[in-house]
Amino acid sequence: MEKPENQYPFLLACRKQPTPYTPIWLMRQAGRYMKEYRALRKKYSFLEMCKNPEMAAQVTLQPIDKFKLDAAIIFSDILIPLEPMGVEFEFAKGEGPVFHRPLREMKDVERLKIIEPEEEIPFLMQAIRIVRRDLEGKIPLIGFSGAPFTLASYMIEGGHSRDYTLTKGLMYQNRPAWDLLMEKISEALIRYLNAQVRAGAQALQIFDSWVGCLTPGDYEEYVLPYSKRVMDGVNKSVPLIHFATSSSTLLERMKQAGGDVIGVDWRVDLGEAWTRIGYDVGIQGNLDPVVLFGPVDLIKKEVKRILDQAKGRPGHIFNLGHGILPNTPVEHVAALVDMVHEYSSRKRNSNTQIPNNK
Amino acid sequence: MEKPENQYPFLLACRKQPTPYTPIWLMRQAGRYMKEYRALRKKYSFLEMCKNPEMAAQVTLQPIDKFKLDAAIIFSDILIPLEPMGVEFEFAKGEGPVFHRPLREMKDVERLKIIEPEEEIPFLMQAIRIVRRDLEGKIPLIGFSGAPFTLASYMIEGGHSRDYTLTKGLMYQNRPAWDLLMEKISEALIRYLNAQVRAGAQALQIFDSWVGCLTPGDYEEYVLPYSKRVMDGVNKSVPLIHFATSSSTLLERMKQAGGDVIGVDWRVDLGEAWTRIGYDVGIQGNLDPVVLFGPVDLIKKEVKRILDQAKGRPGHIFNLGHGILPNTPVEHVAALVDMVHEYSSRKRNSNTQIPNNK
Repeated sequence: MEKPENQYPFLLACRKQPTPYTPIWLMRQAGRYMKEYRALRKKYSFLEMCKNPEMAAQVTLQPIDKFKLDAAIIFSDILIPLEPMGVEFEFAKGEGPVFHRPLREMKDVERLKIIEPEEEIPFLMQAIRIVRRDLEGKIPLIGFSGAPFTLASYMIEGGHSRDYTLTKGLMYQNRPAWDLLMEKISEALIRYLNAQVRAGAQALQIFDSWVGCLTPGDYEEYVLPYSKRVMDGVNKSVPLIHFATSSSTLLERMKQAGGDVIGVDWRVDLGEAWTRIGYDVGIQGNLDPVVLFGPVDLIKKEVKRILDQAKGRPGHIFNLGHGILPNTPVEHVAALVDMVHEYSSRKRNSNTQIPNNK
Repeated sequence: MEKPENQYPFLLACRKQPTPYTPIWLMRQAGRYMKEYRALRKKYSFLEMCKNPEMAAQVTLQPIDKFKLDAAIIFSDILIPLEPMGVEFEFAKGEGPVFHRPLREMKDVERLKIIEPEEEIPFLMQAIRIVRRDLEGKIPLIGFSGAPFTLASYMIEGGHSRDYTLTKGLMYQNRPAWDLLMEKISEALIRYLNAQVRAGAQALQIFDSWVGCLTPGDYEEYVLPYSKRVMDGVNKSVPLIHFATSSSTLLERMKQAGGDVIGVDWRVDLGEAWTRIGYDVGIQGNLDPVVLFGPVDLIKKEVKRILDQAKGRPGHIFNLGHGILPNTPVEHVAALVDMVHEYSSRKRNSNTQIPNNK
């Protein structure tokens, strides 16, 4: 029961078309805050779940069965394409990813392999096909990847970082190695994202989660050309969301790099951010994930504030400013989704929607 | 050999008066990157060093003996005033501060004590007096404290935090406890900062290091009134620098809270930040501390970029965007200080300085 693209509020909003209400999905919506997810995680590791297509599909659909979300996002991890590139990592308990041989010099970068996503990451493509089949056209499915900078930072730091000293060190002190690394990651990401589209992803999001550690000048010089290369190289038949955190000083440059929609975190007022980047792109965000801990009145107040700032202008996709936190109360997530739909739909009926043709 | 206040470029810049060159000091300039500091740290714990006035004074002066810095900052820690408030903590090896009984509810907040800094933190006041004596009026001495939000976040989270879930939780879910906590911290800080001025501090800096995790709206509602209360309550005879990181969306509101100078991190272009906050306050910053790892040409390029953005306008104090990192090469620090002095003085001689009377 596939609907035409223009029947999905999420896809319409990505294209800055009017919608009956503001569509909403949540970063990391398939995750530890749900008991159904925790039940599976007791039996399998995170990577086992990512690599088993049936299980990844099942987890992708868990929040869809429970909440009236306007899009699904395939259950996976931004680090998945690194393994076929030749970079090994594991998820240490409670510590996030750990890379045992971080990249530090040209010879480490030279060793990185070109990936063939269909052959080397078949589980993800299969998971996308299963989810598309099981969704029966109810809502669209989002594929995703990390952005070149964020992936490079993991590969160089060997995990999470506070100061990104090693990443910036390579960037500043070994420009040829940095450029080759970013080129190789960009090529891998173009292949990886296009394979997801071929498998059935109906929209894409690129997560540049840690790029907010850079000066605007460094972003422009060392990162923007590669992010742009990836977004230029991706199949234009599906819309693309370009997301980063702590990026309020980078927004104009992120737009230059690409994306039909720019995703912003809660540190910036959504109205101000949209004015700055311009209404010719959409905007996604930007509830502070901590607000979901409640109380409900606070969630309501913040939802209204964000929707009022968006002014019902076509092109706003409601989301959190970063991934949903592990202990978030499930009933608050349900309440959030309903609030966004109800309040935005009420606003649409009482106001004339601002046409987004500026 | 005390000079009048108007002979110190640092104090002149705090008051937006013209100076022959741009003054520079570095956050955490007395620290692990110096071998003299590491030699002492082998024998004493960090807190032992803070609490011994002779040693704190000695450490304060280590970078002054080595570099042509325009201000000293007393060696201490923002957590020092918490102990007499009744909050115990320790520095766990490699982990930063750990609080064994974090504050979680009203009764925890009610237990907090009013402090008498001269009696309860005599070592700091004594260290300030020793440094003032030993400096012989060569350069001015800065005293400092954390800001109410940053200190509250440590007390509630029990250490560093990634998401500030517990801090925001108290803020959102227990407003009376939050307000009482912020009131008590504010009162303690006013007393603490004024005691430092009485002991001889010639300028003050307030570090709101973690406030960048908030939405602009939350900053305005839950934080600004208390930061303002502290800055309003502090002796106006010395200039005050108000610093935060990841705060580019909060700058206008930080100015509202107070400060003769607003300190910014590297995530924002200094020129843009100054235009936004207005030239009626000074600006401090904003070299990315990672740039100090070099190469020297990069340091030079970034120093020029920042000084060019400041346009030689009176009121710019050069600094890093956050504390100097532990492994920073000492020779690069020396080079930085010289570069800032030379380039800014050359610029002053070749251009007419912009009068800052806008």
